[in-house]
Amino acid sequence: MPDNLNRQWVMVARPTGMVSARHFDCRETPIPEPQEAEVLVRNLYLSFDPAQRVWMNAVPSYVPPVEIGEVMRALSVGQVVKSRHGNFVEGDLVQGMGGWQEYFVAGQSSSDMVNLTRLPKDVAPTLMLSVLGITGLTAYFGLLRVGEAQSGQTVLVSGAAGATGSIASQIARIKGCYTVGVAGGPEKCAWLTEKAGLSAAIDYKNENIRERLHALCPKGVNLYFENVGGDVQMAAFGCLAVGARVVLCGSLSSYNSDKPAPGPDLGSLVVKRARAEGFIVTDYSDEFDAARSELLGWIREGKITYQEDIQTGFDRIPATLCRLFQGRNLGKQLLKLADPD
Amino acid sequence: MPDNLNRQWVMVARPTGMVSARHFDCRETPIPEPQEAEVLVRNLYLSFDPAQRVWMNAVPSYVPPVEIGEVMRALSVGQVVKSRHGNFVEGDLVQGMGGWQEYFVAGQSSSDMVNLTRLPKDVAPTLMLSVLGITGLTAYFGLLRVGEAQSGQTVLVSGAAGATGSIASQIARIKGCYTVGVAGGPEKCAWLTEKAGLSAAIDYKNENIRERLHALCPKGVNLYFENVGGDVQMAAFGCLAVGARVVLCGSLSSYNSDKPAPGPDLGSLVVKRARAEGFIVTDYSDEFDAARSELLGWIREGKITYQEDIQTGFDRIPATLCRLFQGRNLGKQLLKLADPD
Repeated sequence: MPDNLNRQWVMVARPTGMVSARHFDCRETPIPEPQEAEVLVRNLYLSFDPAQRVWMNAVPSYVPPVEIGEVMRALSVGQVVKSRHGNFVEGDLVQGMGGWQEYFVAGQSSSDMVNLTRLPKDVAPTLMLSVLGITGLTAYFGLLRVGEAQSGQTVLVSGAAGATGSIASQIARIKGCYTVGVAGGPEKCAWLTEKAGLSAAIDYKNENIRERLHALCPKGVNLYFENVGGDVQMAAFGCLAVGARVVLCGSLSSYNSDKPAPGPDLGSLVVKRARAEGFIVTDYSDEFDAARSELLGWIREGKITYQEDIQTGFDRIPATLCRLFQGRNLGKQLLKLADPD
Repeated sequence: MPDNLNRQWVMVARPTGMVSARHFDCRETPIPEPQEAEVLVRNLYLSFDPAQRVWMNAVPSYVPPVEIGEVMRALSVGQVVKSRHGNFVEGDLVQGMGGWQEYFVAGQSSSDMVNLTRLPKDVAPTLMLSVLGITGLTAYFGLLRVGEAQSGQTVLVSGAAGATGSIASQIARIKGCYTVGVAGGPEKCAWLTEKAGLSAAIDYKNENIRERLHALCPKGVNLYFENVGGDVQMAAFGCLAVGARVVLCGSLSSYNSDKPAPGPDLGSLVVKRARAEGFIVTDYSDEFDAARSELLGWIREGKITYQEDIQTGFDRIPATLCRLFQGRNLGKQLLKLADPD
């Protein structure tokens, strides 16, 4: 804490369309002092997630909106630098809702909405925000619980080279599913089939999605893991098998739009006796530890490969959020603020 | 069988938009002879169902399309006039897929896709096509099985004065749900609250659906029984409670459209951890008898009221189908061809 100052990015305007750096402003405040039962944490890595764009809207969703003048909400991994809480000591690596700032206070008396989770042993800080973070857990519970993926089924994943999609599609492969990923561009598609081991990939920017889908999945899709919305969603709804499950994880393509994008004609769900179901991964928080163990096992056995796109530096925080919506990240978008002591 | 002729309406053109009388032509053929294990049935009443419009499209849905030159497919109640099948005798009243014709042959060796069901004792023929027919069974299984209606929940039914919607909303009321129906016009809405006993009705033609919905259901809708699509669907998706179920029964407003209508933004299902699920009532056919008993009990106890809109005469068959899509029917649309002997 060289200068006793905590640099923060606060939201100064609500975006009505695409989010950009002008919606944030930099501010310096004194580093806060932890009170009884609180800890002071120094942020090491920030997580960038599509949901952050939703939190910026005035409309309450599953969490309250970020208010104008508030520090932008973000998941982070940090290190405890002062502890007045019995469960934590200085030096502990923790995951929490640290926000876009260098330091934050967390604990019972704090208004932070998410508690701290200590990192498992020998786990890299970034992994706790990517495969073992909300990103990977969303893939895990979405695919296995909401989607009930079964061996032998045909699974389609949109945004398949993205942070969540890439894990969802590999879990489907591990579970013995015939797995097709949709991604934008030949580079991402090559990664899906050559590195992530998917059965096939569709390049939505350069291929006819509908034709390729019907050619690759002639019996229809049993499980569609939906990340993006838009045209890919429309095409997928037209290629469902009887009894299909559509797991609604998010719809990246519409987050920066003023008005809700039109969705697919739901008639296809009637004809196919299919269901579309949304979920919020934090509803499964009691089972996060068990899921992390299984995911970590798959990583160590070499069954899950993953990519992290790590930007650097406090100044680049807002621009890094924009990378997500420009589709510039390959894998999980992170930003490094500091090394652990 | 005065003249030994069987009059039929055959489909002569596939509609691309609104169906009309010009898509059908009248034909006379000899009354068919039942073979071994077959019966000859005289149609007494025809059922008119939104799904018939879907069957006219070239696209296979859950049943094959009606082909050009084929008798238009329709549910009917008829009377056995000749039997060469051990389970039926002359005079039996039966329900089957009789089609738009005066006589049809059904049985093991026939190409008819649906078998005959004998009418329960003391049940009026029209009732077997309305509350005890596919119409009422769709309401029953959709609301109770797919929707899992529970006492105390808020249930919203669109097309609530329609044949299926009116039964679905009354079953919801019987099960102790706070039940709101959406219908077009003050007459239908008055019927819903005064005769069908719903908690409230919204007139989508004369009221602001969104405002009324939020006023009537401040805690959100737990179960939305969806019959119509379009604007009502969009509004309903914006007013779901956490964990809501949307039962997709059909989307009448889009059946006569060339292109699939855009659906709602599915983001609301994510935020509310809600699910939308389609179903086809024939998947529950093993349980039809039990459901009919329960429905009949409710009718006899005066707990379910219903309306039948009975047109008359072979010549008016095509025009009667059009009534459905013009919203001119109040209650179940039927047409009478003949009295039983």
